[in-house]
Amino acid sequence: MILNLLLTGNELMTGDIVDSNSAMIARYLAPHGWSIKKKLTVGDDLHQLIDALRWLASDCDALLVNGGLGPTVDDLTAQALAAACDVALVEQPDALEHLTQWCARLGIVLNAANRKQTILPEGCKLVANPIGSAVGFSMQLGRCLVVCTPGVPRELDAMLTQEIIPAWHTQFGAGEMLVQRFALFGIGESSLQQQISEAIPDWPTDVDLGFRAGFSQLDLKLTTTNPVARAKCTELIQRLQPVIKDFVIGEGETSLAAHLVQLLQENNKQITLAESCTGGSIAAALTQIPGASKVFSAGFITYSNAIKHSVLDVDNAVLNSAGAVSEPVVLQMAKGALQRSGADYAVAVSGIAGPDGGTEEKPVGTVWIAWGSIDNLRAQQMHIRFPRELFQQYVSCIGMDLIRRELRGITATPPYFRYRK
Amino acid sequence: MILNLLLTGNELMTGDIVDSNSAMIARYLAPHGWSIKKKLTVGDDLHQLIDALRWLASDCDALLVNGGLGPTVDDLTAQALAAACDVALVEQPDALEHLTQWCARLGIVLNAANRKQTILPEGCKLVANPIGSAVGFSMQLGRCLVVCTPGVPRELDAMLTQEIIPAWHTQFGAGEMLVQRFALFGIGESSLQQQISEAIPDWPTDVDLGFRAGFSQLDLKLTTTNPVARAKCTELIQRLQPVIKDFVIGEGETSLAAHLVQLLQENNKQITLAESCTGGSIAAALTQIPGASKVFSAGFITYSNAIKHSVLDVDNAVLNSAGAVSEPVVLQMAKGALQRSGADYAVAVSGIAGPDGGTEEKPVGTVWIAWGSIDNLRAQQMHIRFPRELFQQYVSCIGMDLIRRELRGITATPPYFRYRK
Repeated sequence: MILNLLLTGNELMTGDIVDSNSAMIARYLAPHGWSIKKKLTVGDDLHQLIDALRWLASDCDALLVNGGLGPTVDDLTAQALAAACDVALVEQPDALEHLTQWCARLGIVLNAANRKQTILPEGCKLVANPIGSAVGFSMQLGRCLVVCTPGVPRELDAMLTQEIIPAWHTQFGAGEMLVQRFALFGIGESSLQQQISEAIPDWPTDVDLGFRAGFSQLDLKLTTTNPVARAKCTELIQRLQPVIKDFVIGEGETSLAAHLVQLLQENNKQITLAESCTGGSIAAALTQIPGASKVFSAGFITYSNAIKHSVLDVDNAVLNSAGAVSEPVVLQMAKGALQRSGADYAVAVSGIAGPDGGTEEKPVGTVWIAWGSIDNLRAQQMHIRFPRELFQQYVSCIGMDLIRRELRGITATPPYFRYRK
Repeated sequence: MILNLLLTGNELMTGDIVDSNSAMIARYLAPHGWSIKKKLTVGDDLHQLIDALRWLASDCDALLVNGGLGPTVDDLTAQALAAACDVALVEQPDALEHLTQWCARLGIVLNAANRKQTILPEGCKLVANPIGSAVGFSMQLGRCLVVCTPGVPRELDAMLTQEIIPAWHTQFGAGEMLVQRFALFGIGESSLQQQISEAIPDWPTDVDLGFRAGFSQLDLKLTTTNPVARAKCTELIQRLQPVIKDFVIGEGETSLAAHLVQLLQENNKQITLAESCTGGSIAAALTQIPGASKVFSAGFITYSNAIKHSVLDVDNAVLNSAGAVSEPVVLQMAKGALQRSGADYAVAVSGIAGPDGGTEEKPVGTVWIAWGSIDNLRAQQMHIRFPRELFQQYVSCIGMDLIRRELRGITATPPYFRYRK
């Protein structure tokens, strides 16, 4: 099946919002073997929309339209589709029934603006919206099925999964695409690509290898549309293990924080944090995960020397002689946090996030991290040359990763230690 | 000037990355009065790229192409433009010179893959890339100027601001668009729209009023392309003041955290935090702002009752009788944090972020916030029915906003207190 996508809305043209709907759509379609050929975005202009519908519908089996179903005057999708198909706009009783029930459920009065959402191209089929006021609708335009959906992401999400994808399965048949994703931390895209090329020089042409580098996480994706290649995928994944095993934080969509919370739960261990330059970022990442309270009870954000001393019992003499960004200070911070919290593991971080505060000896980006348990605390210095926010995020990930490696029993030196000065 | 945009890359079609470049482009162009008419995205397919170039170039003055300039085989922009313009591909000496210097600067050897980036359509003009290896290039296709740029956001950013926009000013002339943005917190889009309609029923038709609702922040935008309307804008902004003054956290692009750090600095005050359900999110938000160390020295993440007692001196008897999510506990948390840190202001938060942990009396979403200085601590209960992550983010913003209001001397009840149970 060949599929095109039309996105509408002035806010997408002015940069006032970033389109994430089309990525959601593509990711929902991929496992069914359907991919998008062209994606066109235009503003709320009737003539442009009509042209766009006709142009996109001329070379595909299905055209998904997203946006422009709302109650205001700049929502023009129904009008444009009616014009492109050369039919009238009429009030659809089923759409009115949906809207009446929706208003009743929310206890609001159906007004004229909402009622506009029931005026749709004559002869269209409705597509149920399980959440919002705007129903979707579909219509043939030449040999192309045009399906119109609302721009609100969670409404689109519900309609795709509950209505559109099942209907397309019946109409177009599904492909056999197999997608297998791994989330990794601690290795870069080019370095992983090189190691995979060396480990598996005979990589088969019918299995695609893809990378998606987020800021601090790397996703690895194996894709095949060849049913016979499924067994190959399983074998490839086994052969990949020696290369990726130290870095894998999960399959599918996951995060380092989610993986660490899960590992701590499985091991019945608690973690505590003593954060200076990361300023609560590690704690915030962990506590975003449901169930974090089972593995985390106390975190200490100790920005100043006085607080490092009064809250975490760091020696004033050591603070004065070695400075706040130093091995003995992070070790004492970790020890203080462990003693105050009773946790099993600690991460302590002290560094210079910038843009100011660097010296010749300790330039911006210098950081000391201590980690481990009370009888096995270690510390490492690194120099991470990222802007403040990325520095904080990357250092936070390193902190979590060091405890992950501890719990997983990984003894190899982490690649990010190459940033030591 | 009529402008179209062509984005290329398989990763944009598969949903592996979300396109933020086009939003960046639109926002850079807007102040010059230039807007984008059509935005088309296609994968790395030569025939599709050639078709797309011809179709988009046929109805605009300038076509900006983004992506496909890299060193790998799936980077096809130069080849597609050469085919669309019916010219040969030739090695460009100036591009080779740029690349040679770029390699020398990074101390790397120029390889064949990189050298591909110097093979460009015959007769094109180079567009300097101040950062990366790939130069941009421009070429006439019919009456349309096609300008090709790299997909790496910071390279695109540098080329747009340093090269392309200045050149377009000369070639096309600039418009007179005036854009004035305000960032607000604590008021919703529909409520603000209604209050503005009531306060300024005679809103002029040549000044556009736009809203951009982020999750917890609302941006208000006044735009006009009419030079005569500039004076009107100034007058409108004055008339808007009574409606927006309590909610404005800044002009242009800003955040609540940045505004609060600045206010604290101006008032020479320090803040401390005692976070339970927000788990360090407030601290992380504040410490992302450069200079946060001047106004923040200590934060306490006290998830468990035992830690609330041992670290912040909350009475065990009160914890047992009132529960962790209660008025006396957040007041004692705030007091404990102020005493331990010596700060001037505190925010203390205790609540049930969910998805588990709710009871009939205190359902998921229940939260108590205490805020103020040691001699003027207050507390408020709310019930915020958002999923965990959004709950944490919104409650964190409320905490910061309460101190912002304190420092600004705003005495009106904040609208979010309507969420009290």
